[in-house]
Amino acid sequence: MKKISLLGATGSIGTQTLDIITQHPDRFELVAMSIGKNVKLGMELVHQFKPKLLSVLTRETFEQIKHEVPSSVKLSYGDEGLVEVATFSEADVLVNAVIGSVGLGPTLAAIEAGKTIAIANKETLVTAGHIVTQKAKEYGVSLLPVDSEHSAIFQCLQGEDIKKVSRLLVTASGGSFRDKRRDQLTNVTVADALNHPNWSMGAKITIDSATMMNKGLEVIEAHWLFDIPYDQIEVLLHKESIIHSMVEYVDGSVIAQLGTPDMRVPIQYALSYPDRLDFKKQERLNLWEVGKLHFNKPDFERYRCLKFAYEAGRSGGTMPTVLNAANEVAVAAFLENRITFLQIEDYIEQALENHQLVNKPSLETIIEVDQQTRRFVHSLMT
Amino acid sequence: MKKISLLGATGSIGTQTLDIITQHPDRFELVAMSIGKNVKLGMELVHQFKPKLLSVLTRETFEQIKHEVPSSVKLSYGDEGLVEVATFSEADVLVNAVIGSVGLGPTLAAIEAGKTIAIANKETLVTAGHIVTQKAKEYGVSLLPVDSEHSAIFQCLQGEDIKKVSRLLVTASGGSFRDKRRDQLTNVTVADALNHPNWSMGAKITIDSATMMNKGLEVIEAHWLFDIPYDQIEVLLHKESIIHSMVEYVDGSVIAQLGTPDMRVPIQYALSYPDRLDFKKQERLNLWEVGKLHFNKPDFERYRCLKFAYEAGRSGGTMPTVLNAANEVAVAAFLENRITFLQIEDYIEQALENHQLVNKPSLETIIEVDQQTRRFVHSLMT
Repeated sequence: MKKISLLGATGSIGTQTLDIITQHPDRFELVAMSIGKNVKLGMELVHQFKPKLLSVLTRETFEQIKHEVPSSVKLSYGDEGLVEVATFSEADVLVNAVIGSVGLGPTLAAIEAGKTIAIANKETLVTAGHIVTQKAKEYGVSLLPVDSEHSAIFQCLQGEDIKKVSRLLVTASGGSFRDKRRDQLTNVTVADALNHPNWSMGAKITIDSATMMNKGLEVIEAHWLFDIPYDQIEVLLHKESIIHSMVEYVDGSVIAQLGTPDMRVPIQYALSYPDRLDFKKQERLNLWEVGKLHFNKPDFERYRCLKFAYEAGRSGGTMPTVLNAANEVAVAAFLENRITFLQIEDYIEQALENHQLVNKPSLETIIEVDQQTRRFVHSLMT
Repeated sequence: MKKISLLGATGSIGTQTLDIITQHPDRFELVAMSIGKNVKLGMELVHQFKPKLLSVLTRETFEQIKHEVPSSVKLSYGDEGLVEVATFSEADVLVNAVIGSVGLGPTLAAIEAGKTIAIANKETLVTAGHIVTQKAKEYGVSLLPVDSEHSAIFQCLQGEDIKKVSRLLVTASGGSFRDKRRDQLTNVTVADALNHPNWSMGAKITIDSATMMNKGLEVIEAHWLFDIPYDQIEVLLHKESIIHSMVEYVDGSVIAQLGTPDMRVPIQYALSYPDRLDFKKQERLNLWEVGKLHFNKPDFERYRCLKFAYEAGRSGGTMPTVLNAANEVAVAAFLENRITFLQIEDYIEQALENHQLVNKPSLETIIEVDQQTRRFVHSLMT
C-alpha cells in the first residue's frame, strides 16, 4: 500500500490522481491533501477520501470549514499547510499538483523529508531546477514526472543508460490555434484558446498550450529532470498527441511512448512506478483507427514563446523564473480579458529584456525575482 | 572485446554484420564464419577478416579452396562445419544468419556450448521454438533477436516486466504489392516482387514480405521469443517502416521503437546488447522530414499467408514446420519462374491441409516433416 499526499487536490491533475487512487484501493491510499479556491469540491473530496490532514488556502477558509471537517482530519492552511501536507510523516509519495511558484517550497521540504515526489508543478523545475535536482540527489530522492511528455521520456529511458541518449524529442500538439497563421491570432478569444483539440486540462495550461509556452516550460523541465543539454532537446509538432515523446539513442534507435491522450496514464505510472497497473477505464490505442500520425517542425517565429523558453533556458540563472512569472501574469490577464492573446508574448518579451540575469540564484533570489517580474508585468498593463 | 562467430557470412544479414564489426574494431572481432554458394565473396571476406575457422558448403568447395585459404584458417565443410562454427570455443556470440532449416542444428549446438545467440535464422524459432526456448532456458543462454521487428519489441521490453505486457504490435510494410488488390496479383513477376519499397534484403525474404508470410513467421517467432500467446500478438500495416514494432502494457501505455529502415541498427544492438554503440553511418530519423506515418489493419483474405501463419502457430506442433517448408519450396519455385505469385499461397494451403499434426515433435520429427513437406510440394508441381 502506497500512502499518498496530494497538493492541489481539486485541480485537473488532482482530481485525476484521486480517480487513480479510487481505481486501486488495494494499492493507494490518500493520507493528506491540500485544496485551493474550490472549497465546495474540496469538502466533497474530504468526505470521500477521509485524509488525515487537510490544508486549505487561507485562514478565513480554515475558520469557515473547521466545524464541517470530520474530527479525524487535522486541519491546516496557507504556505505552512502546504509544507505540512508535503512532509506528512505517513506519506510515501507526494503528488505536487499545485499551479504556480507556490509549489516550490513544499517540494524542497518534501525532498528534505525523504519523500518520493511525483511532480506536476512546473515551477519546481523551471525556476529552481538547479536547487531541486541538486537537493534530490543529496537526499537520494526520486523525482517522478507526471506530465505526459516527461512521463513518456521517463518510460523510454527505462532499462537504458542516460549517457547513451543523443536527443530528447518532445512532441507538441500545437494547441488550440495550431491551424492558424500568426496574422490570424490578433483577435482570438479566451473561449477559442480554451478549446484544446486533444487534452482535457486546466485553463492556464490550455492557454500555455496555445502559445506553446507550455512546451517551452517542458523543455526546461526536461533539461533538469534528465540532465540533458538544450541542444539535445527538440520539439516536434505532432497534432494527434498520440506519441507523447521520444528518446533517440547514439545508435540511431528511437524509443517512443504512445497512448490515447489521457493524463491518468502518466499519473498512474508515477504512482505505480516501477510497476505498471491495469487501467481498465483506459481506451486502448489502435493505430489503425487513428490511421495517420502527422509531424512538423515548429516555427520559432510562429511560436515565439517557444523561442523565449529556449533562450531563457540556455541563459539559465533567474531567466526561467522571469519567463515563468511573466507568463503567469500575462496568461491570467488574458483569461480575464484584460490583454489580447498576442500581448501575452509581448509582455513576456519585455520582462525578459528588462531583467538583469543572476547566476545560480538562491531560493530567496528566485522568489524575489518572481515577485519583481510580476510587479513589472502588472505595471506594463496599467 | 566480443568474439563473434557468424553463420551465413555472405548473405544480406551476414555482410551487414561484418560491416558492424568493421565499424567497431575495438569492440568486435570475427573469429569463425561459414559461407554458402557465393565462394568468391566468401574468400574475399576470409582475406579481409582473417577468421580462425571457415566452413564452406560442400566437400567440393573445401577441396577447391583449401590451398587458397591462409594457413592460419582452419577449414571445414557441410552440416558439421556449421556446428563447428556455431560452437567455436573462442566465440562469445553466435550470429546465426543462414537461411532455412539448416540453421536449426547449429543453434541447438551453440546453446549447449553456452553461446549467446543472435538469431536471424527464422527456422530456429518457427519450426523448433518449443525445443530451442526450452533448451536456452535450461542452459541459461540468451536468445537475442536480429530481425528489426523482434529487436524493436526486445528494446521496448527493456526495464519492463514481461508479465505486464498486454499486446505485441508487430508492424508490416505490406511488401512490394501493398498497393495492389488481390485480383491485381495474378500476373506479377519475380522482378516486381523483388522491388521492396523500404528494405534492402535477400531475395527469399523479399518475396516473403510481398506475401506477408514473412510477417506470419515473425508472429510465430515473437510468440516463442517473448512467450506471448497468439491472441496478444497483432500485426499492423505501416507502410513507412519507421515504427519497427511496439509493446502495449496493461496500463494502456505503448512503447515503440523507431528508426530509418536500416538492418544494421538491430544487428548492432544484438551485438552490443545490453550496451548501445555509436552508429555514425546511420541516417538520423527526423519525423518532420517523414511528415506522416500511416497505419492500417491487415486483411487476412488479402494476405492469406498471414492467416495461414496464425492458424499454424495456434495449432502448434509440426504445423509451423509444414508452413515454413512449403513456403520455402514454393518461393524457390516462384523465384525460378516455375509457379505464379498466387500459387505460393495455394501450395502452402495444400501442404497444411494434407498434414497430420504431431504435437511436441522431436528434432528428428521436425526434420522428417520438413523433408516430407518439401517432397509433397514438389510433387504438386510436377
